[in-house]
Amino acid sequence: MQAPLLSERDLAFMLYELLDTEALCERPRYRDHNRETFDAAIETARKVAEKYFLPIRQTMDQHQPTFEEGRVQMLAEIKPAVQAIIEAGLACPTADYETGGMQLPAVVASVTGAYLSAAGSTAVGYCSLTNANCNLIEAHGTPEQIARWVAPMREGRWAGTMAMTEPGAGSSMADLTTRAWREADGSYRLAGNKIFISGGDHELTDNIVHLVLARVKGAPAGIKGVSLFIVPKFLVNEDGSLGERNDVHLAGLFHKMGGRGQTSCALSFGEQGGAVAYLVGEENQGIRYMFHMMNEARIMVGTAAATTAVTGYQYSLAYAKERPQGRLPSSKDPMSKPVNIIEHADVRRMLLAQKAYAEGAFALCLYGAQLADDERTAETEQARADAHTLLDFLTPVIKSWPSEYGPRANSLAIQVLGGHGYINEHPVEMFYRDNRLNAIHEGTYGVQAIDLLARKLPMNKVAGFRALLAQIDTTVASAASVSSLAPYAGQLQQLAARVQQTATRLLTAMGDTPIDAVLANATYFLDLMGHLVVAWLWLKQGCVAQAALDNSANDADFYRGKLQALQFFYRYELPQTAVWAELLDTIDTTTLDMQENWF
Amino acid sequence: MQAPLLSERDLAFMLYELLDTEALCERPRYRDHNRETFDAAIETARKVAEKYFLPIRQTMDQHQPTFEEGRVQMLAEIKPAVQAIIEAGLACPTADYETGGMQLPAVVASVTGAYLSAAGSTAVGYCSLTNANCNLIEAHGTPEQIARWVAPMREGRWAGTMAMTEPGAGSSMADLTTRAWREADGSYRLAGNKIFISGGDHELTDNIVHLVLARVKGAPAGIKGVSLFIVPKFLVNEDGSLGERNDVHLAGLFHKMGGRGQTSCALSFGEQGGAVAYLVGEENQGIRYMFHMMNEARIMVGTAAATTAVTGYQYSLAYAKERPQGRLPSSKDPMSKPVNIIEHADVRRMLLAQKAYAEGAFALCLYGAQLADDERTAETEQARADAHTLLDFLTPVIKSWPSEYGPRANSLAIQVLGGHGYINEHPVEMFYRDNRLNAIHEGTYGVQAIDLLARKLPMNKVAGFRALLAQIDTTVASAASVSSLAPYAGQLQQLAARVQQTATRLLTAMGDTPIDAVLANATYFLDLMGHLVVAWLWLKQGCVAQAALDNSANDADFYRGKLQALQFFYRYELPQTAVWAELLDTIDTTTLDMQENWF
Repeated sequence: MQAPLLSERDLAFMLYELLDTEALCERPRYRDHNRETFDAAIETARKVAEKYFLPIRQTMDQHQPTFEEGRVQMLAEIKPAVQAIIEAGLACPTADYETGGMQLPAVVASVTGAYLSAAGSTAVGYCSLTNANCNLIEAHGTPEQIARWVAPMREGRWAGTMAMTEPGAGSSMADLTTRAWREADGSYRLAGNKIFISGGDHELTDNIVHLVLARVKGAPAGIKGVSLFIVPKFLVNEDGSLGERNDVHLAGLFHKMGGRGQTSCALSFGEQGGAVAYLVGEENQGIRYMFHMMNEARIMVGTAAATTAVTGYQYSLAYAKERPQGRLPSSKDPMSKPVNIIEHADVRRMLLAQKAYAEGAFALCLYGAQLADDERTAETEQARADAHTLLDFLTPVIKSWPSEYGPRANSLAIQVLGGHGYINEHPVEMFYRDNRLNAIHEGTYGVQAIDLLARKLPMNKVAGFRALLAQIDTTVASAASVSSLAPYAGQLQQLAARVQQTATRLLTAMGDTPIDAVLANATYFLDLMGHLVVAWLWLKQGCVAQAALDNSANDADFYRGKLQALQFFYRYELPQTAVWAELLDTIDTTTLDMQENWF
Repeated sequence: MQAPLLSERDLAFMLYELLDTEALCERPRYRDHNRETFDAAIETARKVAEKYFLPIRQTMDQHQPTFEEGRVQMLAEIKPAVQAIIEAGLACPTADYETGGMQLPAVVASVTGAYLSAAGSTAVGYCSLTNANCNLIEAHGTPEQIARWVAPMREGRWAGTMAMTEPGAGSSMADLTTRAWREADGSYRLAGNKIFISGGDHELTDNIVHLVLARVKGAPAGIKGVSLFIVPKFLVNEDGSLGERNDVHLAGLFHKMGGRGQTSCALSFGEQGGAVAYLVGEENQGIRYMFHMMNEARIMVGTAAATTAVTGYQYSLAYAKERPQGRLPSSKDPMSKPVNIIEHADVRRMLLAQKAYAEGAFALCLYGAQLADDERTAETEQARADAHTLLDFLTPVIKSWPSEYGPRANSLAIQVLGGHGYINEHPVEMFYRDNRLNAIHEGTYGVQAIDLLARKLPMNKVAGFRALLAQIDTTVASAASVSSLAPYAGQLQQLAARVQQTATRLLTAMGDTPIDAVLANATYFLDLMGHLVVAWLWLKQGCVAQAALDNSANDADFYRGKLQALQFFYRYELPQTAVWAELLDTIDTTTLDMQENWF
């Protein structure tokens, strides 16, 4: 069955009607760009996705990489597909012109990336992780390190990874045990085991540049003693040519439920005496540097989750439009022609819920990407600082809401197809499996929840949350004056006040109640904040849609759909926020009180 | 990692404390039984499960059956495992002694089946579908048909299936096109294509007896023109020996996301002139007969969903008890020893939610099985009729609630394991895939919702719902007098009243509002009823647990865990019922109003 990977109409809506991405072109960094160049990049991404990845999407899933004689074997078609991304300039589209990039705004690059990931799933991760690796070294490395490591990665000759997780330390980076030490000549060696390293080994590129967290001999305990190192698979000679193999070895591959486009590796460092390692920045500052990459990776994860939701929605929508079955309850004539299933109220519910989740999540991720652009290029220092504050606050939400509601959308896509959704003739079961990882990697839902409540909320005198509330106020004020939107404006205003009340309650409790109790229900605070933010973005979409309808826009149907999804989200989804807020206000300790022996 | 398949302690609680299964032994049918014989059967099932299925559980998943030269190839170890079930008498444990059964109550057989399905997933389906097939023929077939077809199935020499679904008719049985006709000699032939036939072909048994829905030439349109036929894979001679191959052929196998222990087949009937078919009962009564098997299959599906939730919970619980990682938020010393993850509030939340969902669902299924026992063997005709009424009403809930909340529990099991939950070294990702089918097959969630609201609720002057409310009243009355339980009693009583109010609203609306609108939100009515029923069963469990604690029972920890899960369900889950009830009361038509072109 043919279905669009993403909705072109909706992407144009998001970029040019909701977010006013064209305005970015007035800024010096993007001055060579305009809507045509943005659209050309997006169109290129769509073509690469459809030509190279879509034909192998299910084959990649069915033939996951294998570990044979110490090497990774993978589907041969992956290499030319990844190469096509690189050749089209889509591997690091936001990078500077000088380093081979296109200087695209992140918000546009999110859309090019979304096309690739809708068709290529995690295979695209070889490029996007490399890009994030480059960004980190550019931010914290020396000019020599940038010249040596970043340039070949930007050219697509080498790839990059992020090597944090260890068998004994997943979410807990304080317990990392990989150790590093200084040799007599001042150079570093490193040894330890890392697991779940995405793209940790493969033969798609000539070299792989690992960014590895390790503890230098004598460093303080905990996260304050963690340093960051560049550890290449192959050593590099002075002239940039490849030297001998470094002491880094593939110990095995993990067999994942989904996301099989990309290897997930166990790597052993230093088994033969110590891997040559190059310190990034200063010793014991590794976590701070790594967060540069991690924050970027968290937004990438949210975007992948949202994208997988959108593509599953598009697929099940196309199916529902052409699959006849059954009749409406009001039809009593068994001889009447079966209707297409999109006529059934419950199928419409499942499609509308997918639309509300998927497009809500996608709008959130693009909004986050545009904040990243503002953080870098807004006119004034104050505007850049404000964007940073808001993005920092929203990062756990951008990572998590799509990771929770994306899989729900994918489950509904399966349900729309019924039995056909459960078999591999259709990709929706793969989307469901692929998307399940997103609430786990780059910080689980629970880790994000504690980050939001314990760190991001109080940070800087609650500046992030206050910045969000100011944005919400603006939208509420503008929606309140439109009669069709006024009820939603009222609902959102009430919800914002309710969340504020709960936040104040919890912040106060942090001062006078045991912290374990205050944080026990942190995930519900993340749920609550996520729904607030997505409700706000839906109302923003509604404002644009209603204005377009008032101006007799051509494609009225599209805008009516936006308003109906808004209505669905406010009537069917938003009321449950009251349940979470009440639970949080009571600082309920049911879970904390449960004892191990009682289970 | 070692983890129990199910909790023996909890099974004993359910059977002997919650449901008083021993009292069944006073009935003539079960008079040879007692707790020892029940426990012996359960113990046998556990041993067969652990010896034959557990060692191949993941291998079966990784090597799904293949279609080679028109035949099914499957893992060789499946045949002896299925044989072990048969030899242990566990294939049809509820059947009469005369037909080789054990005359076990259904409630006990549910537990033996749960052990097998926890270890063998859908591979157990070869036996349980055969059993359900036998039960149908026993109820509606002629003595000759019973002698010819049931006896060899009861002996385990042949297997049985249920062949309903067609490529053009999934949920809509009115549109079945498989046709049957009478030959000159009065015998029937049949032709058509069926898909998604579980166990539709294999070489585990000498013959396969398909129960096939088809339309006899000249029959009325719709479901009133559907007849039921016995169509064997091999014809059978007068003496019972196998004759030539019937005109039934395996057209292909489906590759499912999970449940790979059992084949899912496309079968073509009558491609070479017509498959020999034997009418069951009368023409055009097929749907009614098939519902005999379908109702049984629906309870089986609910039980499989609940079982998969329980076994996933047990696995993640065992993992959480032995996996050290991180420290509590209150611990500031990075040198302190990491705690086992079960110490973290959010991990406890995920385990407690699993316990609440899984044990709630399992209690619901066992309660349903005991109603089936009462329907058959209760002392008075009135008691049997009452049990029938209540079971009939609850069947969509028993099918659906575990199918919705079971997968949620399995998702939480993955989350407890983090990245380790996403890879096939641990079985939790398989449980998540396996369980996703249960909201689809034997009537989707949406189909069950309409069955509940449009058919089961109004049926017989709302007798089913009223019977449920009477049960709830009894529990509320007994809990209200126990101080620790009184708040829950109050909450349940309020909820019951609220659901009653919504039900009345909807029943009234069925008279004066377009039916498509009244049924548009039927799934939320199913959600609402499901939570009411499970909340009631949790309060029943709480009553037993509190009484045991009051009597200084030995294993106080176990009972405290029950009370804590009760508390979790009432504080964290139950409040959202208010949202569903309000939505239903407004007869919201957001989904119905959404137009195809607006998507």
